[in-house]
Amino acid sequence: MTFSVGLLGHGTVGSAFHELLGARADSIERSVGMRPEIAGILTTSQGDFDEILERSDLVVELIGGVEPAREYILRALGAGKHVVTANKQVLSQHGEEVYAAARESGVQLRFEAAVGGVVPAIRVVHETLAAAHIERVHGIVNGTTNFILTEMTRTGETYSEALRQAQELGYAEADPSEDVNGKDAAAKMAILARLAFSTPVHLDQVPYEGIERITVEDIEYAKELGLSLKLIGSAERIDEGVSVRVYPAFLYAEHPLASVNGSFNAVTIESPAITEITLSGPGAGGSQTASAVLGDVISAMIPPPTLPAPAVELQLVSDVEGAFYLHLEVADRPGVLAQIAEILGLQGVSIKSVVQKGLGDDARLVMVMHPVLESKFRAAVDLIERLDFVRAKPRVIRVIEEHFE
Amino acid sequence: MTFSVGLLGHGTVGSAFHELLGARADSIERSVGMRPEIAGILTTSQGDFDEILERSDLVVELIGGVEPAREYILRALGAGKHVVTANKQVLSQHGEEVYAAARESGVQLRFEAAVGGVVPAIRVVHETLAAAHIERVHGIVNGTTNFILTEMTRTGETYSEALRQAQELGYAEADPSEDVNGKDAAAKMAILARLAFSTPVHLDQVPYEGIERITVEDIEYAKELGLSLKLIGSAERIDEGVSVRVYPAFLYAEHPLASVNGSFNAVTIESPAITEITLSGPGAGGSQTASAVLGDVISAMIPPPTLPAPAVELQLVSDVEGAFYLHLEVADRPGVLAQIAEILGLQGVSIKSVVQKGLGDDARLVMVMHPVLESKFRAAVDLIERLDFVRAKPRVIRVIEEHFE
Repeated sequence: MTFSVGLLGHGTVGSAFHELLGARADSIERSVGMRPEIAGILTTSQGDFDEILERSDLVVELIGGVEPAREYILRALGAGKHVVTANKQVLSQHGEEVYAAARESGVQLRFEAAVGGVVPAIRVVHETLAAAHIERVHGIVNGTTNFILTEMTRTGETYSEALRQAQELGYAEADPSEDVNGKDAAAKMAILARLAFSTPVHLDQVPYEGIERITVEDIEYAKELGLSLKLIGSAERIDEGVSVRVYPAFLYAEHPLASVNGSFNAVTIESPAITEITLSGPGAGGSQTASAVLGDVISAMIPPPTLPAPAVELQLVSDVEGAFYLHLEVADRPGVLAQIAEILGLQGVSIKSVVQKGLGDDARLVMVMHPVLESKFRAAVDLIERLDFVRAKPRVIRVIEEHFE
Repeated sequence: MTFSVGLLGHGTVGSAFHELLGARADSIERSVGMRPEIAGILTTSQGDFDEILERSDLVVELIGGVEPAREYILRALGAGKHVVTANKQVLSQHGEEVYAAARESGVQLRFEAAVGGVVPAIRVVHETLAAAHIERVHGIVNGTTNFILTEMTRTGETYSEALRQAQELGYAEADPSEDVNGKDAAAKMAILARLAFSTPVHLDQVPYEGIERITVEDIEYAKELGLSLKLIGSAERIDEGVSVRVYPAFLYAEHPLASVNGSFNAVTIESPAITEITLSGPGAGGSQTASAVLGDVISAMIPPPTLPAPAVELQLVSDVEGAFYLHLEVADRPGVLAQIAEILGLQGVSIKSVVQKGLGDDARLVMVMHPVLESKFRAAVDLIERLDFVRAKPRVIRVIEEHFE
């Protein structure tokens, strides 16, 4: 069975989505029982909206901007088609109209990709916290500004230098104004606040400040006091009302957003029952946004599964490559390090660094190895343990060097 | 309309859940259209399982341990009742049996509270990442050990001292063995790995090491090199197989789990399409676990909403209390600070700290205020800006002191 997806827009995200859908179609068909297929693509030079709509079960809107995106979304919903969109402009300015249209037609409208890059902020605010009364949402929801502030902190560069750097590396657009002045973050916070507090929030109601006036001195002050300077989007209950704003802020080191660096996004959701949950991940790149869009498409295809998929047997591997720290207490005499190094070498274990410290007649050797198959490293340690100059049981701890490859 | 919940177990989590359900029933009824009510409670001294089962739409199992919890879960599923459980022992040792029973009856089985405290790791692995091929899951899934390692790092205490401290503060049980030896984390990783890779993983197949042998020296070494020492649960694809393990590991400062401190839990999910997502939040306390259980109950009551709830109008507050940083460039002459302090004081703004630095004929004043209504602070800054000895436009940045109250 086929599930037809009409694709509106074929820019960076649109084409990444198109490619990802093709690559994952087999796997989705296996787990969902339907095969997603592109029913048609609308660009400024190609395709007819009505024809595509007619053929589609679901419409993915990745045109951006208010018009004609808003019109297409409303017409798709009105025609009883599910809609997945990444359009923060439409949702932050015409959200109530669009939500009402979806409710009236009884179809799904999903927009995870509109906020927070790959961070599933919408889902978590919307679904998981049904049980909790949300008091506050704090977010770093613009990757460009977080990259610039991180660079200013790391290198001591000025705002303009860091912005130029961000543009060269593709983290900022040629015209970065809506990122750096806080408007992009304000639109995202309007959408999040609407969900968190079930009250209409229009972009116009969200005061925002940007990072253009942040100086090297502000950053230095933050460093001296152990603070992090971030562009924060804040949505909180204040007595019987809510406040939604975007502003640069100093965060104490313990704040869960203080350690979110580079172009990453993160959202902290606070509620008395749960204390807080923080979600973080890369800000929007083409492939990340495409993956959030595809997740929404799959969710619209079937209600989310509540059960693990039937199992496939995979082999459980026990001998895995890793880096290791080895702590040895040895007699402080000549030739000790050489002998240990030889044993490691014979097992194919390569030493990355060694620190030796005297300890009376004894010495302490702390070594870190390059990644190696665990069985080989353990074999070497067994041999080392038997050497007569080793005074105590060797201690081994793994070292995780990279968090992704 | 009523939705009847049978509650098995009334210990810390069970009674917290009971209380939370009562407190949230009105709000749930408003948003879901059904009112959850306790149909009966089973404890060792009270209640009859068959009677409770008969009366329930859904059974919440919070007894813990394998038997009789496993039997009750299977019988509830067999009787066509939804089941919500926090039972990591049953799921990590009898998962396939339980999942098959749920699949056969076509009912929901939810278990967010079994892993990761309030962190919605199960949901995010299970639902959001339908679109992504998960390569690796790294987790800090035991709050007790993370608290102990954090304390050892912070204070230089030994393992035994930090453990005693954790017991006194309620972060470790009187018998902490399954926490500190890694078995608790291994059970949670078995459950997560089953979901991430769709392959059966039994607790017996997860090798684990604990933190009992970590010494002050290991911690010192980590500090010297800017590493964090954490008890890590790891589940990853290795060629055509998977590896699931628990071990203490050094993490580089950039690793998203390196800054997760105290009794917090966190999970990082890595996939080529999304790079990575990290979720963090408090480890399991009674009220947090109860809130995860209630979230599952609500999800079982109705499919998760895909639309924002109809809006309720709340007032958008623009004047909010906050702490502020104020950066002034002023002429370096007597009386300047006094005059600025007076203006601030007249507006009710109280100074928390001041740093003054000479700058030739000028001086730079950096002040941080105690929390105050923004309008009052802005009024003071407007007055200060007009003083003849102020050389440049004052710079204002917010300070976020606490991340929850």
